[in-house]
Amino acid sequence: MELLTERSARIVAARKLTRRAGRDAAGLFLAEGRQAVVEALAEPEVVREVFATEAAADAHRELLASTPVPVRLITEKAAAGLSETVTPQGLIAVCGLRDVAGETLTARPPRLAVALAGLADPGNAGTVLRTADACGAGAVVFGAGSADPYGGKAVRASAGSLFHVDVVRGAPLEQLLPSLQDAGVTVLAADGGGEAALDEVAADGRLAGPVVWLFGNEARGVPAELAARADLRVRIPMRGRAESLNLAAAAAICLYATQLAQG
Amino acid sequence: MELLTERSARIVAARKLTRRAGRDAAGLFLAEGRQAVVEALAEPEVVREVFATEAAADAHRELLASTPVPVRLITEKAAAGLSETVTPQGLIAVCGLRDVAGETLTARPPRLAVALAGLADPGNAGTVLRTADACGAGAVVFGAGSADPYGGKAVRASAGSLFHVDVVRGAPLEQLLPSLQDAGVTVLAADGGGEAALDEVAADGRLAGPVVWLFGNEARGVPAELAARADLRVRIPMRGRAESLNLAAAAAICLYATQLAQG
Repeated sequence: MELLTERSARIVAARKLTRRAGRDAAGLFLAEGRQAVVEALAEPEVVREVFATEAAADAHRELLASTPVPVRLITEKAAAGLSETVTPQGLIAVCGLRDVAGETLTARPPRLAVALAGLADPGNAGTVLRTADACGAGAVVFGAGSADPYGGKAVRASAGSLFHVDVVRGAPLEQLLPSLQDAGVTVLAADGGGEAALDEVAADGRLAGPVVWLFGNEARGVPAELAARADLRVRIPMRGRAESLNLAAAAAICLYATQLAQG
Repeated sequence: MELLTERSARIVAARKLTRRAGRDAAGLFLAEGRQAVVEALAEPEVVREVFATEAAADAHRELLASTPVPVRLITEKAAAGLSETVTPQGLIAVCGLRDVAGETLTARPPRLAVALAGLADPGNAGTVLRTADACGAGAVVFGAGSADPYGGKAVRASAGSLFHVDVVRGAPLEQLLPSLQDAGVTVLAADGGGEAALDEVAADGRLAGPVVWLFGNEARGVPAELAARADLRVRIPMRGRAESLNLAAAAAICLYATQLAQG
């Protein structure tokens, strides 16, 4: 089989997917590495094609033999051009964006969801997706200005969870959150200066109903207007001397506490 | 005052501290940015000198005026050479390594400590330090082969917590952990396949005594020999479909649960 090079039309087109504008224009994104490709191929209808270097095709022979999705061999250089990692794995699935409309979320709110207001770091975006998935969340909303969950770093950090959880992008949170509240969902803003402590909120049953956790920017937190509209601003009690927690660590604590409370 | 350039002897010497071998040879490390420098200067005896660009000296005038530590002005280029960030903040403290011997830990074990076996990512090293500090841990042990907590990325991710918590480096965990057990400490290994679930362990009081949490490598987990010697291997129950959690997220959940259990 002929190898596609970095100049082949398919690779040139795929390379555009390493930028957000290219992804949004094509409605596609790249999922790199064995774990992501395995998760993607579990829903073959979302995968357009798989690119593999000869070495990767060899290493993942069984995986690739069992899928109806077309597999195309590419050069190492072409693989490097599609990768954001220092050591490309040579295995990349071209997948359709998995966006769900905000209305879908308000029509049937999951028991647990996450909304991100201005989360900047792509690694954090992926890690929060992974944690949300682990704790049984049904959806993660990326508000305007948040990192793109379909970027290479975010996809990698999500470790496949991008394929498990509904993704809502670019939704105006100042409209979506009230709609969720109207639908009976409690909106909790994670806020180091919040009036309620997480352990108390967990103990008094306020995490049991349908809940959306709202997390903000790594440095600035949740925007004040959004925090004010939340049903409750919740702080994580800290015994030690650190002023605050890393955002992904704070999200992990809040989401795990909610999973436990929801039983 | 004369500006030190990238060729000045002090800057050439400081630049060596961007590598682990240089740090260990000199017994010093670099803490960059306002937050880290504020925390460092809170214990002025650990700070040898502060480097600041003219812009940074201007921006942090009050902070720098109130310290007995010598402040030296440097060029932007010199600052860039000392920084691991894309946008250097121009403010760097040269600090003494804060290592504590393993024997100090076993002589007076804190109620909560963390041991890292082969943790590879410097960002995770710093994030775990920050979370450990937030949850009231007294020490973090970086076993042989773990990322160096004094590297630029780790210092930045620790957000000042490196100055709050005792650091033990390069300790042979296969000796240190039994010594801690002899001293009455319970060693808990975080392990996705562990026999005990975190919520059960928290409920039955096994987190209340002095505890050391053992976390492993991001991909491979805790080495089997060490996991086998732990008092208990603990898994985090997950309701969702993710196979595992990000290491720093898992550590946050375990340490917060311990803080709560220790009241």
